[in-house]
Amino acid sequence: MTTDQDWMAQAIAQANTAQYRTRPNPAVGCVIVKNEQIIGRGATAPVGGSHAEVFALKEAGMQAKDATAYVTLEPCAHYGRTPPCAEALIKAGLKKVVIATLDPNPLVAGKGLAMLNDAGIETIVGVLQHEAQAQNRGFLKVMAGGLPYVRLKIAASLDGRTAMASGESKWITGEAARQDVQHWRAISGAVITGIQTILADDAQLNVRNLLDVDLSEVVQPWRVILDRHGQLPLQAKILRSPATVMVMGPYREELAQLGVVQFEPQSLTDLLSTLKSAYKIYDVLVEAGATLSTSFLQDNLVDEVIQYIAPMYLGQTARALNQLNYESMQQRFQLKLLEVKQIHQDIRLRLQPVQHCCASHIEPS
Amino acid sequence: MTTDQDWMAQAIAQANTAQYRTRPNPAVGCVIVKNEQIIGRGATAPVGGSHAEVFALKEAGMQAKDATAYVTLEPCAHYGRTPPCAEALIKAGLKKVVIATLDPNPLVAGKGLAMLNDAGIETIVGVLQHEAQAQNRGFLKVMAGGLPYVRLKIAASLDGRTAMASGESKWITGEAARQDVQHWRAISGAVITGIQTILADDAQLNVRNLLDVDLSEVVQPWRVILDRHGQLPLQAKILRSPATVMVMGPYREELAQLGVVQFEPQSLTDLLSTLKSAYKIYDVLVEAGATLSTSFLQDNLVDEVIQYIAPMYLGQTARALNQLNYESMQQRFQLKLLEVKQIHQDIRLRLQPVQHCCASHIEPS
Repeated sequence: MTTDQDWMAQAIAQANTAQYRTRPNPAVGCVIVKNEQIIGRGATAPVGGSHAEVFALKEAGMQAKDATAYVTLEPCAHYGRTPPCAEALIKAGLKKVVIATLDPNPLVAGKGLAMLNDAGIETIVGVLQHEAQAQNRGFLKVMAGGLPYVRLKIAASLDGRTAMASGESKWITGEAARQDVQHWRAISGAVITGIQTILADDAQLNVRNLLDVDLSEVVQPWRVILDRHGQLPLQAKILRSPATVMVMGPYREELAQLGVVQFEPQSLTDLLSTLKSAYKIYDVLVEAGATLSTSFLQDNLVDEVIQYIAPMYLGQTARALNQLNYESMQQRFQLKLLEVKQIHQDIRLRLQPVQHCCASHIEPS
Repeated sequence: MTTDQDWMAQAIAQANTAQYRTRPNPAVGCVIVKNEQIIGRGATAPVGGSHAEVFALKEAGMQAKDATAYVTLEPCAHYGRTPPCAEALIKAGLKKVVIATLDPNPLVAGKGLAMLNDAGIETIVGVLQHEAQAQNRGFLKVMAGGLPYVRLKIAASLDGRTAMASGESKWITGEAARQDVQHWRAISGAVITGIQTILADDAQLNVRNLLDVDLSEVVQPWRVILDRHGQLPLQAKILRSPATVMVMGPYREELAQLGVVQFEPQSLTDLLSTLKSAYKIYDVLVEAGATLSTSFLQDNLVDEVIQYIAPMYLGQTARALNQLNYESMQQRFQLKLLEVKQIHQDIRLRLQPVQHCCASHIEPS
């Protein structure tokens, strides 16, 4: 007997196929099931295209009548670039709709569910909710009224060092771990870095290789450079694709001519707010040195730390991964371990900061 | 069909039951199998008692004739505190003997195997060899002519810190990780520490709780304190059981009166050599601060690093886990990742130092 969880897992797999191409829309998956068989499946198309439910209904055709649909996100109820999916499901005569998670988008927010119920369709909400939410962290956080979802990437040695004192850092982690970073960039609306990272590594911070993925289908992230003193060299590699570069710093005419978006110096919170409101950037990856990383941590702006650990000691004179200054254990920056994964000879940890004010009250579970 | 590997896994499980009680003897397990059934099993008794094969043969009784024995270590061939096990297996009329690993002990070293073959018994060597060797690292290394097997334990934060600048370090890792440390102490002939650890934490470094193990059956490790300036206070908790304390430092009459073993200051290599030759200490656990840990690393004396990582940042002014000084990546101290294990909210890594001379030639695999 196949359970609702099993079918929803199929819908989640569908959503995964769309994870790099739908921004700023959420990646959604749908399967339609009748007599224990999948008769239709779909995933969100790139912006302007159809939603997952539409593809699945099209494949199912007339058979959709009295079938069950599994959708990873509440079907939309509003006329946007496409007609509401809830309406399409009703018209097709679905008997039951199983939803992984509700859409906090004020334009939907239970209205899709209500439309289905009003039409007499049975609904179940919350199947594999956690897994479905993990697919659209930024979208869900922003739609619920929050700032973009910020992931802080750190690559360090076993003794917590990110580079030698000289700045040398190629390579601490191995190729597979560096490949893994491409995924986090590709699901992000923007990668934020500091000018020092550009000056030291001439980094481009774009998506260059994703295993088994056609790069032409990937929505490239904006690259946001914090450059308060206007030091970005015009020959920096990152300016080879200036249309997806943003610089926060003093206005420079030559950057404007290249098409680079420029922001006045502002707080990190304000910057995130701007990225969200003006550019629909919901997921942010911070790939920066210790100074900027520490600012994000101290301002409580980090939702998730992705730390790669390489099996080596670089020694006490190498660069520390942060510039936090604490005198007692009670002040420590506490995190909750979400996931441990070995990537060849490196380890990837995913961690969630515990709100700093309360760190000392939290018992490790 | 049960394979040789399956039966040997049973013998290894037998050896595991003896892992804390047999020192300085190796922990060995044996099962005797006939008609697809185990008819006898045994594990090494504490020193002076019988070897694994003797127990297994006793349980099998007359049925041992034409049966197959699975032994985790080559049966001994010499008269020690007990008669040779190879002889006992021959007398019992075994048809076949499967051995996980040969015993490099010069008194055995293939002689046990030869005795069995000379008596017309079929032998297989090397089944689950790796797993069996892991059970007696120190014994096998020493018997092959080496120094004791040294494990270096480190407990640090995600940013590589072992304590605040003040020395405060209670607790970085959680209770389950600290419990895990007890295992490594219990399989060690000695725990080595520096006087600073005693002065700062009043540590006892003994085995106080092992899950599901009767502590009275555990051979407690020697606690070896490196105290070059004779600072060990007589009221230190570690001196509550002075009979298993060793101090390397200037001779002190009051320690002698307590029964503490004292060594003249000597190099770490010489100390390990003394522990091995004079005290049959084959496995050593180093639980020390950055200074002593660094000395062991730099002297290439560490066979395995056991690093616990707690999900917190202690900041750049907290104490570094080592005092290594490198200027370039090429000089780095490279390790090979053997195992990653999550222990509640902490992570335990087991790593093997890559010979330092060659670190720059090793590609991460």
